[in-house]
Amino acid sequence: MTSKDNILKCEAVALDEERNALVILDQTQLPNKIAMLSLKDIESVYQAIYSLQVRGAPAIGIAAAFGLYVASLALDDEEFFARFHEYKEYLNSARPTAVNLSWALERMEKVVTGNKGKSISEIKELLRREAIAIKNEDADMCRRIGEYGLTLIKDGDGILTHCNAGQLATAKYGTALAPLHLGRERGMNFKVFCDETRPLLQGARLSTFELLADGIDTTLICDNMASQVMKNGWINAVFVGCDRVAANGDACNKIGTSGLAILAKHYGIPFYVLGPTSTIDMSINSGEQIVIEQRPIEEVTEMWYSKRMAPEGVKVYNPAFDVTEHELITGIVTERGILRPPYVDSLRLIMK
Amino acid sequence: MTSKDNILKCEAVALDEERNALVILDQTQLPNKIAMLSLKDIESVYQAIYSLQVRGAPAIGIAAAFGLYVASLALDDEEFFARFHEYKEYLNSARPTAVNLSWALERMEKVVTGNKGKSISEIKELLRREAIAIKNEDADMCRRIGEYGLTLIKDGDGILTHCNAGQLATAKYGTALAPLHLGRERGMNFKVFCDETRPLLQGARLSTFELLADGIDTTLICDNMASQVMKNGWINAVFVGCDRVAANGDACNKIGTSGLAILAKHYGIPFYVLGPTSTIDMSINSGEQIVIEQRPIEEVTEMWYSKRMAPEGVKVYNPAFDVTEHELITGIVTERGILRPPYVDSLRLIMK
Repeated sequence: MTSKDNILKCEAVALDEERNALVILDQTQLPNKIAMLSLKDIESVYQAIYSLQVRGAPAIGIAAAFGLYVASLALDDEEFFARFHEYKEYLNSARPTAVNLSWALERMEKVVTGNKGKSISEIKELLRREAIAIKNEDADMCRRIGEYGLTLIKDGDGILTHCNAGQLATAKYGTALAPLHLGRERGMNFKVFCDETRPLLQGARLSTFELLADGIDTTLICDNMASQVMKNGWINAVFVGCDRVAANGDACNKIGTSGLAILAKHYGIPFYVLGPTSTIDMSINSGEQIVIEQRPIEEVTEMWYSKRMAPEGVKVYNPAFDVTEHELITGIVTERGILRPPYVDSLRLIMK
Repeated sequence: MTSKDNILKCEAVALDEERNALVILDQTQLPNKIAMLSLKDIESVYQAIYSLQVRGAPAIGIAAAFGLYVASLALDDEEFFARFHEYKEYLNSARPTAVNLSWALERMEKVVTGNKGKSISEIKELLRREAIAIKNEDADMCRRIGEYGLTLIKDGDGILTHCNAGQLATAKYGTALAPLHLGRERGMNFKVFCDETRPLLQGARLSTFELLADGIDTTLICDNMASQVMKNGWINAVFVGCDRVAANGDACNKIGTSGLAILAKHYGIPFYVLGPTSTIDMSINSGEQIVIEQRPIEEVTEMWYSKRMAPEGVKVYNPAFDVTEHELITGIVTERGILRPPYVDSLRLIMK
């Protein structure tokens, strides 16, 4: 795949096999500039992950796998084993808390340690296949979430989404946005409304960008306009992602999600949470056990702005997430199927 | 009243009787700069109204009355009547659609036309009294709204508000914020949460400013955090203003208000609309008859930001107001008392 294809498909991460390069859509420059980065050496791959030019746990893992592969191509046979391990450890330190990063790098290293009897060029070919497999498996999982999600909507529907649970954070399709991209591939047309998602504006900057790039009818609204959009009769379903789902179905997601769920219930609109089963945490009984991260107040008072938009000294409450109670959720869409209430039963069954 | 008192009390408009000047708190510079403008000539009064340095219908009317008075002081006896009328017409053209502006200017001119037998210096004294009366009447109306509102809350309560229905838009106290300022005068302490109110950020820029200036415990949140703040148990009542109330109690107010009302109902929190009876429009049966103003898309995509925060070509839906259905409103607080459901009856009774 070339950089040009990548831009057209709005993929976050790709392998340019002609030039043996990791190709990244620089998300720090969106939506003002579509900048493709073509990376070959380990330092620039590290930098791209560290500086959030690639973001979203699955996309980070894929970028690391491709990056480790293309960097390893330059290694001589003599230095290969020692340097490969160094490279892997170095990339792993770019964002120490990202689980997908170390998981993908471990998978790549197992290819090397498990095939020491083979030639270096054979090992390099196996690394290429493994990295592509990591991406394809993620795309496949997202595609399956998309397939299940598509059964919930029909051509022409209006869909409201929040934050960015899209393909910019994954190999392809995304999670909450997967049904929309997949439906688009099949010639379906949706009318998608994106909450801008204050304070970090992932909806305004990222979701609108990837949906427009896919030719989808996309309308941006401020978060406080969701009620009016629903009242207008424009929304057939709400699709949101999730960061963690408790054993009772309570879903933790970007701040503002719980409010949307309450509005959807008021207006009689189905509210769906979409995500891989890896986000389901059966070790916690309810959302009450989830500690909500508090973020810096400057995100609200001055970030993005050319000057302060609130007086000095004002207190700010800036939680990054909220928990949507399971009673408000119409269904949870995973790669293994659609879960329905009561979630204590349906989650236990699927997570066996 | 001097400029210094004015800053401390965070009043939008005052008459500086020592210097015979109209004093304005320049709201276009808030919250970054507290700039008091001392205006004496008719051109600068016009400019202050035209450029929104003073905003809010009641505050504009008061500024025009004070401005017309101080400018008339410089008029000679011979030129007085002709020039006074010119001045009045000139100010009236600053914002042709603001009802309070022409209403206040007409009141001032009636003082002149009704007292032609008196000396010019006597007329000027009557003008001073009339302008002060216009301000005092507005402050009195707001104070009465505040008195009724105060009966709904108690010391230490948490109050959520939206947009700015505060004293920056009126003579004093404001409408939705009147109970909070009045309670503060009496030594009460509230914990006030202000929605930032996208896209124009009146909550972040103006409400937090005037509440902090009054020494009130004030916390800024993004609009999408209201659900979490309510869930935390921090809110005892929601207080919002109104732009227009229909005969059935449906209330039109800043975009986002209807969503707050739905959240308040979900969490069992009382939701109050506060405003003068002049905003009640008995000629419309329900909120469905209110046409909602659509605003420029740039307010969402680039205003305040140093660069575009959404891709070129994205559609934007940007309604300025929404209508909160009367079923969601616990009470409507006016200067004549608190109305309760069914509003078709309570409104008809009070508006007789």
